[in-house]
Amino acid sequence: MPDEEFVVTPYEVRGRVDYDRLREMFGTQTLGPELLAKLHHIAGADLPPLLTRGIYYSHRDLGPLLDGFANGKPFFLYSGRGPSGPMHTSHLVHFDLCVWLQRRLGVRMYIQITDDEKYWSRAGLTREETAKWGLENLYDILALGFDPKRTHVFFDSRSIAALYPLAIRVARKIPYSTVKAVFGLEPSSNIGWVFFTALQTVPAFWPSWAEGTSIPCLIPCGIDQDPHFRVTRDIAEGLGYPKPALLHSRMVPGLQGDAAMSTTGATADNALFLNDPPKTVERKIRDAFTGGRATVEEQRRLGATPEICSIWALWRTRFAETDQKFDEITRQCRSGELLCGDCKGQLLERVHRFYREHEEAREKAKAWAESTIVTAAPRPL
Amino acid sequence: MPDEEFVVTPYEVRGRVDYDRLREMFGTQTLGPELLAKLHHIAGADLPPLLTRGIYYSHRDLGPLLDGFANGKPFFLYSGRGPSGPMHTSHLVHFDLCVWLQRRLGVRMYIQITDDEKYWSRAGLTREETAKWGLENLYDILALGFDPKRTHVFFDSRSIAALYPLAIRVARKIPYSTVKAVFGLEPSSNIGWVFFTALQTVPAFWPSWAEGTSIPCLIPCGIDQDPHFRVTRDIAEGLGYPKPALLHSRMVPGLQGDAAMSTTGATADNALFLNDPPKTVERKIRDAFTGGRATVEEQRRLGATPEICSIWALWRTRFAETDQKFDEITRQCRSGELLCGDCKGQLLERVHRFYREHEEAREKAKAWAESTIVTAAPRPL
Repeated sequence: MPDEEFVVTPYEVRGRVDYDRLREMFGTQTLGPELLAKLHHIAGADLPPLLTRGIYYSHRDLGPLLDGFANGKPFFLYSGRGPSGPMHTSHLVHFDLCVWLQRRLGVRMYIQITDDEKYWSRAGLTREETAKWGLENLYDILALGFDPKRTHVFFDSRSIAALYPLAIRVARKIPYSTVKAVFGLEPSSNIGWVFFTALQTVPAFWPSWAEGTSIPCLIPCGIDQDPHFRVTRDIAEGLGYPKPALLHSRMVPGLQGDAAMSTTGATADNALFLNDPPKTVERKIRDAFTGGRATVEEQRRLGATPEICSIWALWRTRFAETDQKFDEITRQCRSGELLCGDCKGQLLERVHRFYREHEEAREKAKAWAESTIVTAAPRPL
Repeated sequence: MPDEEFVVTPYEVRGRVDYDRLREMFGTQTLGPELLAKLHHIAGADLPPLLTRGIYYSHRDLGPLLDGFANGKPFFLYSGRGPSGPMHTSHLVHFDLCVWLQRRLGVRMYIQITDDEKYWSRAGLTREETAKWGLENLYDILALGFDPKRTHVFFDSRSIAALYPLAIRVARKIPYSTVKAVFGLEPSSNIGWVFFTALQTVPAFWPSWAEGTSIPCLIPCGIDQDPHFRVTRDIAEGLGYPKPALLHSRMVPGLQGDAAMSTTGATADNALFLNDPPKTVERKIRDAFTGGRATVEEQRRLGATPEICSIWALWRTRFAETDQKFDEITRQCRSGELLCGDCKGQLLERVHRFYREHEEAREKAKAWAESTIVTAAPRPL
């Protein structure tokens, strides 16, 4: 998706992303007030920050999915993680939303841990590393509040017996030319990487296949991952499964001001890793890029610019618990009332608290994580 | 491998194959009297027809493998079958040799049944069909005389948990460009087919990986399959495994005079299927292409040409139990003493007997076939 100003592909996000333009280029629908109201009504509760603050802003086919749910047809959630290293706070966006949806709607969650794909797509990683990070990442994900009874994990290298019968059928539907075009693979790309999109597609159909009935799927993901799931949507009907609905988020900017909090081609200082010790978290936040002015005097007079600020993005996605708090921070920032140092101090306190609580929840999740991993196929073909 | 006279690729055999020329083009070694004598010595028994009658005629690294065996280092055998339909008699060539080697040398046999690959590479087949034929074919293979205790089967769709951890490592070593060049895949080829060569490679390394030690592998195969295993050999050392040795056979000509008894793009009359009823076998043999002359008188006078005869090829590969019988048939054919009709009659009697005995052995093999299928990985990574 090259443009004079920004680049967004499933493997790269660069430049200042014009999200509305991107949505138009991808041909997805706006996540507007009407749909949000519908979800609010179905959930019977206030919507979470990720929805009220415009972080999720685009979708495909969410309306029919919610209508179906309202009429007694449950859907399931599907998200995943490529375990290349420790997770950072912006990796939590989709899982946070899934936890909320699972709690409010009682729906099932399927999580794919792609320890095979990360080994194939990152030459520098060993299998031992992707397997180890797969498990570590899984603990982080489950700790966010998933229901052990309704959460199922495909840990690729360990769940292959469960995935493969369906992957065989999916793979026949996807020509190499599609993978090449969508993911920009080169002739030198290894054949595991080429095959992988079949495995990434499987969870979207798996419950329908396993149970021999049609169960809709909702995939919350970054807008950059839309091309991945367009392939999934394109082949769904030919295999007799419903097209998965998608909910697209903006990317969370990196602490250094990059378009996304990514660790690919960036320094570790660009992201808050969940295994960063408190001192490191503090340093990273203190050093983070903000929308502040060159001098205190100027900032008091003109105010700062939250839209370009990495700290404001953290408040927005997770750390301002209430919309009231978020609006206050935003107003004070814009008016010049709140200086960047104080704002960072307030945020830091919340981040530290989250890390402490997360660590506790993570220890508890370890006890039941193994029980969520699906290892057997429900049917032979 | 295009040539003015013949074409040989892993997916196509066409024209009158010049086997010596093909061996030179592939750069393999001649299977000469010295190596055969070495095998005779190690086996402590007469060599089987497939070796004495020049059907196996080429190899890679057989010498070191036999030397190793003589010095107390056992190897294992690996062969496989793509279950696209019933097996025919020429499919048995490699398994017959393996049975002999297993019996004489006490070595282990690994058989791969690629019900995934056949689904990927043959658009007309359903998964139900490749799975069904996989099991039917397996019964036919095991019935040839394999030792239940030393024979292990990778039935791809059912053995994937055992294969996948190693397949992940293998797949990273194989770029798409290699698969494209070796197998002639098109951009429209599906990504399962692209991935498959990784799975076909795994059994050659599997025992070494499973046991954490270096165990040599011998793969008997048609010379047309050499490119497949050249890929395997090329990546072996980078993964820390020995390069598999290869033993190459000529292709068995089809009953209609084609270069190979293949069912791809040929009529069913070109091959003797193991599930053909006696009447069909009789008709196919009666209608088979021979090296006979236009008239009885001419044949009595000039003799026939065994080298181009599909019936002679059947005597040669399997149905002349002794070399004495084979030499007699050949001599009588060449001299004009034996007419094609009588020769076919003699062969038919033996073919009928083989079918009866095979059916009995097959019923017995069904009882233990399931126990040979490997379903679990011996290690996680």
